[in-house]
Amino acid sequence: MGIFENFIIGPMTPWGPFIVGLVGLVCAFALYGLIMKYPEGNPKVVKIGNQIHLGAKVFMITEYKILLPVLLVLVLACGFSPLGWDTALAIAVGALSSAIAGFIGMYSATKANVRTATAAEESGQERALSISFFGGSIMGLCVASMGLIGLGGLYVYFVGSMNDDYKTIASALEGFGVGASAVALFSRVGGGIFTKSADVGADLVGKIEAGIPEDDPRNPGVIADNVGDNVGDIAGMGSDIFESYCGAMIASIAIAATLSNPDLMFLPLWLAASGLFCSLIGIGIVRSQVSRSPAVALRYGTFFSPIIFLIFAGLSIYYSPNVEMNYFYSILTGAVGGILIGLITEYYTGGSTLDSPVGKIAKSGETGPATVIISGLSVGMISVVMPILVIAGIIGVSTYFSGLYGVGIAAVGMLSTVGITMAIDAYGPVADNAGGIAEMSGMKSEVREITDSLDELGNTTAAIGKGFAIGAAALAALAIIAAFTQVTKVELLLSDPRVLVGMFIGGTIPFLVSSITMTAVGDAAFEMIEEIRRQFREIPGLLEGKADPDTAKCVDIATNAALKKMLLPGAIAILSPIVIGFGLGAIELGGMLAGALLGCVLLALMMANAGGAWDNAKKFVEKGNFGGKGTETHSAAVVGDTVGDPFKDTSGPSMNILINVMAIVSLVIAPLL
Amino acid sequence: MGIFENFIIGPMTPWGPFIVGLVGLVCAFALYGLIMKYPEGNPKVVKIGNQIHLGAKVFMITEYKILLPVLLVLVLACGFSPLGWDTALAIAVGALSSAIAGFIGMYSATKANVRTATAAEESGQERALSISFFGGSIMGLCVASMGLIGLGGLYVYFVGSMNDDYKTIASALEGFGVGASAVALFSRVGGGIFTKSADVGADLVGKIEAGIPEDDPRNPGVIADNVGDNVGDIAGMGSDIFESYCGAMIASIAIAATLSNPDLMFLPLWLAASGLFCSLIGIGIVRSQVSRSPAVALRYGTFFSPIIFLIFAGLSIYYSPNVEMNYFYSILTGAVGGILIGLITEYYTGGSTLDSPVGKIAKSGETGPATVIISGLSVGMISVVMPILVIAGIIGVSTYFSGLYGVGIAAVGMLSTVGITMAIDAYGPVADNAGGIAEMSGMKSEVREITDSLDELGNTTAAIGKGFAIGAAALAALAIIAAFTQVTKVELLLSDPRVLVGMFIGGTIPFLVSSITMTAVGDAAFEMIEEIRRQFREIPGLLEGKADPDTAKCVDIATNAALKKMLLPGAIAILSPIVIGFGLGAIELGGMLAGALLGCVLLALMMANAGGAWDNAKKFVEKGNFGGKGTETHSAAVVGDTVGDPFKDTSGPSMNILINVMAIVSLVIAPLL
Repeated sequence: MGIFENFIIGPMTPWGPFIVGLVGLVCAFALYGLIMKYPEGNPKVVKIGNQIHLGAKVFMITEYKILLPVLLVLVLACGFSPLGWDTALAIAVGALSSAIAGFIGMYSATKANVRTATAAEESGQERALSISFFGGSIMGLCVASMGLIGLGGLYVYFVGSMNDDYKTIASALEGFGVGASAVALFSRVGGGIFTKSADVGADLVGKIEAGIPEDDPRNPGVIADNVGDNVGDIAGMGSDIFESYCGAMIASIAIAATLSNPDLMFLPLWLAASGLFCSLIGIGIVRSQVSRSPAVALRYGTFFSPIIFLIFAGLSIYYSPNVEMNYFYSILTGAVGGILIGLITEYYTGGSTLDSPVGKIAKSGETGPATVIISGLSVGMISVVMPILVIAGIIGVSTYFSGLYGVGIAAVGMLSTVGITMAIDAYGPVADNAGGIAEMSGMKSEVREITDSLDELGNTTAAIGKGFAIGAAALAALAIIAAFTQVTKVELLLSDPRVLVGMFIGGTIPFLVSSITMTAVGDAAFEMIEEIRRQFREIPGLLEGKADPDTAKCVDIATNAALKKMLLPGAIAILSPIVIGFGLGAIELGGMLAGALLGCVLLALMMANAGGAWDNAKKFVEKGNFGGKGTETHSAAVVGDTVGDPFKDTSGPSMNILINVMAIVSLVIAPLL
Repeated sequence: MGIFENFIIGPMTPWGPFIVGLVGLVCAFALYGLIMKYPEGNPKVVKIGNQIHLGAKVFMITEYKILLPVLLVLVLACGFSPLGWDTALAIAVGALSSAIAGFIGMYSATKANVRTATAAEESGQERALSISFFGGSIMGLCVASMGLIGLGGLYVYFVGSMNDDYKTIASALEGFGVGASAVALFSRVGGGIFTKSADVGADLVGKIEAGIPEDDPRNPGVIADNVGDNVGDIAGMGSDIFESYCGAMIASIAIAATLSNPDLMFLPLWLAASGLFCSLIGIGIVRSQVSRSPAVALRYGTFFSPIIFLIFAGLSIYYSPNVEMNYFYSILTGAVGGILIGLITEYYTGGSTLDSPVGKIAKSGETGPATVIISGLSVGMISVVMPILVIAGIIGVSTYFSGLYGVGIAAVGMLSTVGITMAIDAYGPVADNAGGIAEMSGMKSEVREITDSLDELGNTTAAIGKGFAIGAAALAALAIIAAFTQVTKVELLLSDPRVLVGMFIGGTIPFLVSSITMTAVGDAAFEMIEEIRRQFREIPGLLEGKADPDTAKCVDIATNAALKKMLLPGAIAILSPIVIGFGLGAIELGGMLAGALLGCVLLALMMANAGGAWDNAKKFVEKGNFGGKGTETHSAAVVGDTVGDPFKDTSGPSMNILINVMAIVSLVIAPLL
């Protein structure tokens, strides 16, 4: 194991990252035990909770069942190809790690939601926040832990079996990214279609046609809507971040391998392991501050973990004989950039004054839905500028210090404390679900107020998380593309028409996939609408509350629609690099990746931020501004929110996956081109 | 004049293009004389016509007045800089040529519109089509002629004075592009803001608040709305095409100069001159076929001119000793590609069946405005794929035959028959105006039916024209960027972080400018709404039709708002290459141009097509589908149309200008970097 010889930082051993991953997983299980100690609630709550839990479980199992043959084909094709069985093994391990993380996260979240609602009713805000945050933390810890267990374990195994052949090790590890990407594709795109078709469908029939409030238990679609939060915003988001997290490490390892530098190959794993420790500390900080103020507690967690991580990373690099401080500056750039992007996102989507972007969108509702759409799109478009300038800054500074490796390690720096970031991110949907459960089970309005305030806080943190996820995905993808150029040794000159042809082709792909996923949500929502209408028509006494709706049927429809509709975008993501790479060549493929990257990042930011801003503009009106609920202004704001739903929760997030899948597939097939 | 020695194709002399330009201009004046022979109409029509004519004239004069100091600064700065006074002269000539073309086009269109309305009333469809088509043809001929007069004249002058120093000649000619771009910036962006603020403002108050129909003479904003068609869709569009037309020639000349090939330098001018001849033939064909069917007549013109042009170009290159046939294949690629892009645009925006994209958007109106927006955006997004694949194909094929020069000459091939393309394009707004005049002057409904059918045809041709304009602008800009890389001799490697930084920065600029122009329309429309509301409130008897509205005041407001609001996007377009070029460097600037090009083309297509599709979806409902006018479905479709207005007529078209201004400014400052 000569690869580690020069890399002695404190007590770190080659198995370190793997072991830290195991520790993180144990902590996640401990949190699960903690949650389960709290009371589930009255029978009505238990019943609703079980329906959501079961629906989410069925969706994920169905999803994994469809994924399995796809993965088998990938693994076998890879194994029998010149890429070999090591890469094939990595694909399997990558997929398994991501799937396990997502499943545990979803499983725990659907246990935490009922307990949050019950805690809000019985004990108040503080305990409700604790439980929902623990629920989110399990997802966060699972992402970080499973990443370290899977990638860290494979790394040590490959180093042992391949006798320090750097490039072969790096090449085999790339399979891990493919596996993680495949799961992310299904979870995030499928989950995104599920959650929004259920949401839009339930809302359109329930609120508008039947005239019953949101989350009303008579609406057959509400369980599906709540299931959607868990499979889309928790498991889906988790698989998205997992992919970026591992992608950043894999890309850094690949670039380090082309430099034949074993220390730099190990550095990303070391950083991720440190970051998981710091996330655990951060989760503790949030827990200890909950009694003061939820907002303050979450903010402390968001900022303290990266700061501790940076101190830790700086010191350990300073004391490493073979790793220069320059690398630390790149890491610092990435971590600071990630926070900046989050804050910018918050500005555009989280405002609550008349002068804020959100306030202006709400005001434009006074002249009807058209102006709400125009102003929301306008906010979405301008909101891409600052985050992308930050990304450009990260690229410029990180490569100044560390060359192309800098981009990879900056992404690792941004993503190291993913445990806490993801925890804060996933807490929102848990609180949102708790609110839905409170409403459906007829808890008193004070309970709903508590869950609403938690949810609102969660919306802002979710927006920050989305901005962060996009930034991280962009950097991770860029690092993978950089690795691609290093591995293929192609010269991608912008004055080369082949590069331009590829770039134009690549630029269209995010628009194509966005269009397909938006249409998919519309179509699936339409099926949902038909079913809800049918139930209202055919089940006697349903609207009067005397009969139960067939909620399972709605979950079923959303599940099937989602998984059917994600096949086409999935195929585009996986096949486009293969078709262009083998059909045209590596140079065109390189150009395509650059064009797709730019398009994906631009659209992802625009859609996520416009969607978030519309959502909050509607909430802003609902708080009583511009006349509040029931006015024309409110109806106009609802139109914006409905358009924003597939933007922010389906098409937008799909962009992260799309570019990462395209990049990692390209990197894997690079040696064959 | 050794530069022409080896270039003897038939009777062509160095002064050929200039002389052909003069001939074209004479034909334009002849058409003007023809139009003026037709009766203007009754006093009511004359009065309305005069108001529109005057409003348009005032707008353009105000616009040119503001432009003048900007141009003076540009000319002087350039003259005193190392670029020198030849380039400065070219800037002045370029601006003057474009300004003259736009002014004549607008002037004639506002003479043709009243005569079209009167002809529709007195003589029927055939004569109405002739007059409106002649009105549009004047704009088309002016664009082609003034381009040849200006650029052709300067070319001969520089060749004479510079003693065959190719690179200096090419460099001086680039100034022409800067001048043309500056005018386009003001005309297209300012005109776009004018036309849509007037349109949206007049519609929102008139139709929705006051409950009076479109183009009702009681609405103080309708004159401004009709003025907008002339300054935005005719003069603005003309300046846009003028810029691409000359940009393509200038870029080809610049690339040919780096190859030290005088024959290839002259080729674009020769092609453009041939194209103008073919356009004249095409105009004749349309005129002769009008009696059969308007649709057939326009289609004949659209296809015959390019075919004749290609035969002409093929033969003359075949018989030229120093120009290889390979160049012809590149020209062919460009011309065919332009037609393909037009047809694809027609598919996405011009459908009239239930299964067409337009029909599906209309159907989505049954579930409200939100689904109309989602489906329209979805159509807009997917509609970018095919045109961009065509552009990628043009790049691939044209460079295969002719290297980077191929992109330039393909763009020239696409744009050579601009006379007829622009004629068909500009005919639509003339017919639209005629319809408005018919409505305002209370002509009988049969007249309106005639103008409506002409307008509808015009809408489709305008959509084709927009697709064509985007494709041409993209290729022209790409050619200019290619010239930039040849002149600066920078190596723009995608693996170079500086290129990536530039690319990300560049990618944000189209989003920034789109956001600004959309907000500008909203703000300006709001001022318009306030004024219209004030007039309805303060002018006694206005709503009862007993008093005249103060239409001039509304024109004034739109003029000031438009010109004020276009300064920021204009400044971004001109300054961003200067700031990045001198602040970061030529490599970052090259990356920025690539990112901006990709972003501009993607957004331009998406916005133009989504806007066109929404527009036609509303018309589709108005024809009685899904319940027709007055239904909820119609209201939903109107929301889509209102969102589409700034998309297709302001922000979308601004993208063409934006990338061309950025590219030409970069090319001009290239020697200084």
